[in-house]
Amino acid sequence: MDVKILVIHGPNLNMLGKREPGHYGTETMDEINRQMTQKGLQLGMKVDFYQSNCEGQIIDRIQSACDQYNGLIINPAAYTHTSLAIRDALLLLSCPVVEVHLSNIYQRESFRRHSMIADVVSGQISGFGSNGYLLAMDAVFQLLRS
Amino acid sequence: MDVKILVIHGPNLNMLGKREPGHYGTETMDEINRQMTQKGLQLGMKVDFYQSNCEGQIIDRIQSACDQYNGLIINPAAYTHTSLAIRDALLLLSCPVVEVHLSNIYQRESFRRHSMIADVVSGQISGFGSNGYLLAMDAVFQLLRS
Amino acid sequence: MDVKILVIHGPNLNMLGKREPGHYGTETMDEINRQMTQKGLQLGMKVDFYQSNCEGQIIDRIQSACDQYNGLIINPAAYTHTSLAIRDALLLLSCPVVEVHLSNIYQRESFRRHSMIADVVSGQISGFGSNGYLLAMDAVFQLLRS
Amino acid sequence: MDVKILVIHGPNLNMLGKREPGHYGTETMDEINRQMTQKGLQLGMKVDFYQSNCEGQIIDRIQSACDQYNGLIINPAAYTHTSLAIRDALLLLSCPVVEVHLSNIYQRESFRRHSMIADVVSGQISGFGSNGYLLAMDAVFQLLRS
Amino acid sequence: MDVKILVIHGPNLNMLGKREPGHYGTETMDEINRQMTQKGLQLGMKVDFYQSNCEGQIIDRIQSACDQYNGLIINPAAYTHTSLAIRDALLLLSCPVVEVHLSNIYQRESFRRHSMIADVVSGQISGFGSNGYLLAMDAVFQLLRS
Amino acid sequence: MDVKILVIHGPNLNMLGKREPGHYGTETMDEINRQMTQKGLQLGMKVDFYQSNCEGQIIDRIQSACDQYNGLIINPAAYTHTSLAIRDALLLLSCPVVEVHLSNIYQRESFRRHSMIADVVSGQISGFGSNGYLLAMDAVFQLLRS
Amino acid sequence: MDVKILVIHGPNLNMLGKREPGHYGTETMDEINRQMTQKGLQLGMKVDFYQSNCEGQIIDRIQSACDQYNGLIINPAAYTHTSLAIRDALLLLSCPVVEVHLSNIYQRESFRRHSMIADVVSGQISGFGSNGYLLAMDAVFQLLRS
Amino acid sequence: MDVKILVIHGPNLNMLGKREPGHYGTETMDEINRQMTQKGLQLGMKVDFYQSNCEGQIIDRIQSACDQYNGLIINPAAYTHTSLAIRDALLLLSCPVVEVHLSNIYQRESFRRHSMIADVVSGQISGFGSNGYLLAMDAVFQLLRS
Amino acid sequence: MDVKILVIHGPNLNMLGKREPGHYGTETMDEINRQMTQKGLQLGMKVDFYQSNCEGQIIDRIQSACDQYNGLIINPAAYTHTSLAIRDALLLLSCPVVEVHLSNIYQRESFRRHSMIADVVSGQISGFGSNGYLLAMDAVFQLLRS
Amino acid sequence: MDVKILVIHGPNLNMLGKREPGHYGTETMDEINRQMTQKGLQLGMKVDFYQSNCEGQIIDRIQSACDQYNGLIINPAAYTHTSLAIRDALLLLSCPVVEVHLSNIYQRESFRRHSMIADVVSGQISGFGSNGYLLAMDAVFQLLRS
Amino acid sequence: MDVKILVIHGPNLNMLGKREPGHYGTETMDEINRQMTQKGLQLGMKVDFYQSNCEGQIIDRIQSACDQYNGLIINPAAYTHTSLAIRDALLLLSCPVVEVHLSNIYQRESFRRHSMIADVVSGQISGFGSNGYLLAMDAVFQLLRS
Amino acid sequence: MDVKILVIHGPNLNMLGKREPGHYGTETMDEINRQMTQKGLQLGMKVDFYQSNCEGQIIDRIQSACDQYNGLIINPAAYTHTSLAIRDALLLLSCPVVEVHLSNIYQRESFRRHSMIADVVSGQISGFGSNGYLLAMDAVFQLLRS
Repeated sequence: MDVKILVIHGPNLNMLGKREPGHYGTETMDEINRQMTQKGLQLGMKVDFYQSNCEGQIIDRIQSACDQYNGLIINPAAYTHTSLAIRDALLLLSCPVVEVHLSNIYQRESFRRHSMIADVVSGQISGFGSNGYLLAMDAVFQLLRS
Repeated sequence: MDVKILVIHGPNLNMLGKREPGHYGTETMDEINRQMTQKGLQLGMKVDFYQSNCEGQIIDRIQSACDQYNGLIINPAAYTHTSLAIRDALLLLSCPVVEVHLSNIYQRESFRRHSMIADVVSGQISGFGSNGYLLAMDAVFQLLRS
Repeated sequence: MDVKILVIHGPNLNMLGKREPGHYGTETMDEINRQMTQKGLQLGMKVDFYQSNCEGQIIDRIQSACDQYNGLIINPAAYTHTSLAIRDALLLLSCPVVEVHLSNIYQRESFRRHSMIADVVSGQISGFGSNGYLLAMDAVFQLLRS
Repeated sequence: MDVKILVIHGPNLNMLGKREPGHYGTETMDEINRQMTQKGLQLGMKVDFYQSNCEGQIIDRIQSACDQYNGLIINPAAYTHTSLAIRDALLLLSCPVVEVHLSNIYQRESFRRHSMIADVVSGQISGFGSNGYLLAMDAVFQLLRS
Repeated sequence: MDVKILVIHGPNLNMLGKREPGHYGTETMDEINRQMTQKGLQLGMKVDFYQSNCEGQIIDRIQSACDQYNGLIINPAAYTHTSLAIRDALLLLSCPVVEVHLSNIYQRESFRRHSMIADVVSGQISGFGSNGYLLAMDAVFQLLRS
Repeated sequence: MDVKILVIHGPNLNMLGKREPGHYGTETMDEINRQMTQKGLQLGMKVDFYQSNCEGQIIDRIQSACDQYNGLIINPAAYTHTSLAIRDALLLLSCPVVEVHLSNIYQRESFRRHSMIADVVSGQISGFGSNGYLLAMDAVFQLLRS
Repeated sequence: MDVKILVIHGPNLNMLGKREPGHYGTETMDEINRQMTQKGLQLGMKVDFYQSNCEGQIIDRIQSACDQYNGLIINPAAYTHTSLAIRDALLLLSCPVVEVHLSNIYQRESFRRHSMIADVVSGQISGFGSNGYLLAMDAVFQLLRS
Repeated sequence: MDVKILVIHGPNLNMLGKREPGHYGTETMDEINRQMTQKGLQLGMKVDFYQSNCEGQIIDRIQSACDQYNGLIINPAAYTHTSLAIRDALLLLSCPVVEVHLSNIYQRESFRRHSMIADVVSGQISGFGSNGYLLAMDAVFQLLRS
Repeated sequence: MDVKILVIHGPNLNMLGKREPGHYGTETMDEINRQMTQKGLQLGMKVDFYQSNCEGQIIDRIQSACDQYNGLIINPAAYTHTSLAIRDALLLLSCPVVEVHLSNIYQRESFRRHSMIADVVSGQISGFGSNGYLLAMDAVFQLLRS
Repeated sequence: MDVKILVIHGPNLNMLGKREPGHYGTETMDEINRQMTQKGLQLGMKVDFYQSNCEGQIIDRIQSACDQYNGLIINPAAYTHTSLAIRDALLLLSCPVVEVHLSNIYQRESFRRHSMIADVVSGQISGFGSNGYLLAMDAVFQLLRS
Repeated sequence: MDVKILVIHGPNLNMLGKREPGHYGTETMDEINRQMTQKGLQLGMKVDFYQSNCEGQIIDRIQSACDQYNGLIINPAAYTHTSLAIRDALLLLSCPVVEVHLSNIYQRESFRRHSMIADVVSGQISGFGSNGYLLAMDAVFQLLRS
Repeated sequence: MDVKILVIHGPNLNMLGKREPGHYGTETMDEINRQMTQKGLQLGMKVDFYQSNCEGQIIDRIQSACDQYNGLIINPAAYTHTSLAIRDALLLLSCPVVEVHLSNIYQRESFRRHSMIADVVSGQISGFGSNGYLLAMDAVFQLLRS
């Protein structure tokens, strides 16, 4: 198993399953991570996870991932809409990057309709709940093959 | 095999593989459809296809799909950004609807950043080329199970 | 009975009674048409009906109505907000034209607040459900008398 | 005759027939009121009238109408476009409210295209001259029956 | 002396000389009126004055002025920027109307830069303090002569 | 007891307790006023009350308060968002002025998010229902002491 | 004669000569086409014509023109301002494309000032009435020579 | 006669009387200048005149006026709306500056409603035709006295 | 004493009393905290304090407060206007949350007029200096009682 | 040969052929002028040329052309997008005026999409390089004949 | 000494030291030029100077500089914000161009925050008074070396 | 050597030389710092350096610099455009602050054209690569002397 990917969860996602279940479902972040590890085994991918509420720490982690990973899956949560600095950090990477959103961001407040990173990632998946992360793994898998 | 889904391709997608390969790749629509049929066999899904350049005909087809299909995958192409009427037609459906875009629409002209249907579908997948359609099939599959 | 009017129903109105009853009520388009025919008998008006989901066909129909009808009642549905071409077609007519909306378009999404045709018709009636069509017939009747 | 409705005319409508006949016709407010009284007799409706140039007095009148009337017809004239306070007053009523405009407000200056009250009334009728008031009576009549 | 003009002072102008002297100087409204009366004697003009804080009363006064005066000088103060109803009332008049502002409204908050009545009056004079009223009298005088 | 404050309630607040309880609670204006009188006794403040639906009358009252009161508490209701003339009147006062809103205006329609007077008052309290008025009394009390 | 060009007329242009002569002159579409055929004979160009009111059919026609024509002259009429799908279709062509407008679109309503296709065609000619089509033929001729 | 003022006419005003008489009347610039000279004799003012179509020359003239004149009357015509450089030049002057417009600029195209210099001059007079210049002389006279 | 509240001070508030006294007064954060502790004793509230310049740490603290406190008072300072992530964190809480601003944010730069959290808190108090925190304690007290 | 036309080249066009050939080709202004002179001989038109970098001189030249020429062809280059004064000058002419742009201005920076003169000229030709001037001569020729 | 640079001062800069010293300091343009000449001697640069109030003359000078200078330092003053034509002229140059502003343009009126030339120059220096010109010389020096 | 300055590098600048060399060159941050230390020796300035990806830590550092340094040079990178909190921190300083950008921010994405701190610093230098830091040192040096 020599493909390694990193999954970054943005602010407040550590509270998943405890907050606004109408938007995000009842699964916790740990449960989602377990499913991804599981699927990783099938796809031959090792999956590491990182969560932080701090924009700067997320940037630190993206920078340190430059040569360590074959792909990145990121759900920047609220920072999706405000962080130009995370966008700049993502530009450092040359591996595939997939943006995931649990909820359909287009069904929510208008300020959630614009993503600061959408135009610097490979692609975006939104609205499929925790399943979106698994689809993202398939997408990374396919991007690495082509 | 009793799950049936419909795939609708919007205007100019019949020309795929012949046009702007930088944005859309070199596969033709027929090749993509064959891959979906193939994957349908694995998932136990029958897949029907429809393409039209005419907004009205796409609406006709969506309406007639109301009771015939368990899921809809739609790439409205240019109508994504201009057709309020297709949006209204989608509101008639109660089955899962997934919006797919071949290219990352956020890397293109600004008028392609806004989707008229994003907030009335289950979720959106963009930027993964023809693989996006296959991911959408997984997404529909999962939505029907939950 | 020598007054003839044409009623044009825009996209998705053929699905009336089957869709979003909160907005549009439970009557079908055929039931509404029957009421109009009925009222036409009282007012001495022959009423023809046309529905299409296709912008181009609606334009064809408006053009062919130029010399055949004494009045036009039109509910362009979603095309109200996007079709400059229907607006241009209406400019061809010299008879009274009344714009009808079943729901109060001002209570809905913001993009439904602007009508592309409002400033080229005689007047607008919105928010009274199917009764709006009957009021429109009275309005045409009165416009023809004055 | 136990149905009572109130008709409120906004600022400058007392000058009807004396001003800008291109926009508003040559009928005076009293003549319009007489026609409404007449039609009220046919429909079994008693009609009261009120005109004021003062936003505050119009609000006073709407408030006092809360339990006295079965329906309200209002043409707020210039206050249509500027008065949030009249909007708030209308929210106090639970009976049907119909907004009427003599001219087609969409054919005039752009600042007349937006109504502050359109989304809190039952429906809107504009562009039919004084006949609009009579149509509004039919609309109220129908709303009370359903 | 058979030329009669009306001068209307808008809201808060009755407090002139007591308020924000940086913007409006130290003269009171009565002192200004006296100067106008004086100048009226020279020009052969009888000058009447009216002040109100109430939009509706100002409209009442404009309406009643229709046939009584040969000219109107109006400083609508804050209503300059918000009252569409006063604008509508001014459209009733056929005599010359001059808009006056004591302060240079372009040196103040941005929301004071737009006048709702500027395009329906004969002309506008702003920034000359109380002298602006006297200039307005000359302007009316000249407009009546030509 | 030699501190006197004036409380001004804007349009439609006389209907409190009868209207939209979701937004404004079930207390009437009189009950709120009684609580303020009560609290005034504790703080050594005499409290006078004024309500009007008329912008002009509210301005009259503010002007007449210039030298009579040590503080002003004002809830301009709908006029908060539209009245430049009330803003101008408040500029006449040199005593503390506190703006109160019963509901959290930021949770309502977007046009209620902007206050025309917020930048000319001492401070603003919103979202605490009738308790906001009592907090405002404490605020005035403290402003007078410092 | 081995140069072939296609001329596409958009919605309502089939009514030329019957509608708004102030904007479009009195010539019919057939008369214009005859002039173009005539001029084609001089330039050694065969000219085919197509008119449709339907966006989808225009797209069909553009697609089928991909390998058949040496040049395209298009007046998309109202679709100029709303059709992203026609724009996408034009991107399929590699031959010269010239956009023509009969009237000076900059002298009309503001929503006619923006062309969705202007930046994907070779050039634009507007305001010269039917002569604009003949100038466009010269332009295509010259573009093919250089 | 020791008061000297300068009058600057902006671009195209040298063509007055020959152009668009609907907007600017039939008097020529020379005739207007003669009236001002005449009025200057009465007021004890020497009046110099300058006209140029060139923004830079107008700036040169304003600069050279710094210590030579007691007042400036300027009608920057089209430069009113575009010239930040003339605005900067006017800031060099410490004498009264009056902005004059022949036509009521608020009755014309929307881009004429904004003046780049209005907030750096003493006051503005617009809409009174050539009489506006004479009023401006009175205004300067009065500003010099106070 | 079993009611516990948390007070969160945003970026740069640790410098209070050392910075821009014109906006924020001369009291230090510690002095304000002492006053709140004092008032807490009177109201039977234990008050904890937290200050950070780091958005992420503030989010961490809000999250950890979920089950520990009965109320939250927050002055997010500059993050008020930019932090969607703090807004999301506040949505996790079910206890009363009061937003406090020392200065009247409406009298400052325009980008300080919009609060990202105002519509997800119970209410807002701004402009009363350090006294605003004490008023907020009363507000929380009252919200907990009702 | 009694038809005379004037061709005006705006700022920097004297550098044609030396600058940004990607946008403007390699022909010099003199070469273009020679082609026009040549074509003028065929059409029976005498062609004069004028180039200036100065807005004011261009206006001077337009003014002096009033009675001397039968048509004007103008490429105002950068002034197209900023000069209201040139627009005003063009309004002085009663002969046909054709606006030419070498490059397709719609394919360049967004601020080049708006022409200040487009709505006061007869028509516009853009995107055909130097051939655009020759087409403009045909257009003028045709406009003079009709 | 074979490096030659040109320094262009825009409109009103010839008045430096005489105008708004709060913004621009008390040094005159000649004094600044002398300092630059002085520094040029140290750096081995010959420095020529040009000032004009006329946009067209500045363009002429830029054009004539094309082959004569190794670098350009330009402070376009007010034309910074309005002149698209100067921007076009600068595109003709291939040598380094440095934009200088004496004052910090971001601390002034909002319309001074946008520079029309910033994206076509090498770099920008603003806010350091006359020292900015000397820094620009260093910058040019360094750009020529690399 | 008793002058001390602090240099703050914002997010992702620690990756300089490894990322997007087209925008930022190939020098690393350490190489740039060494050049600054070197130049500091010449100017008699001790230079300290700080880099962080975390907005909060940058604020901490600025605060702690209040009394320790004679000048600050800051390149806030992505936070330039989003951080109001850094702006607030800079307001705490009374020493000169110079804003530096390696690339010409006006040649990049539009959201990089606005700096949140530009109006609270002494001046701004952008577009000169690493040399910009050295110019900034000269600027600080000069500001400290005057």
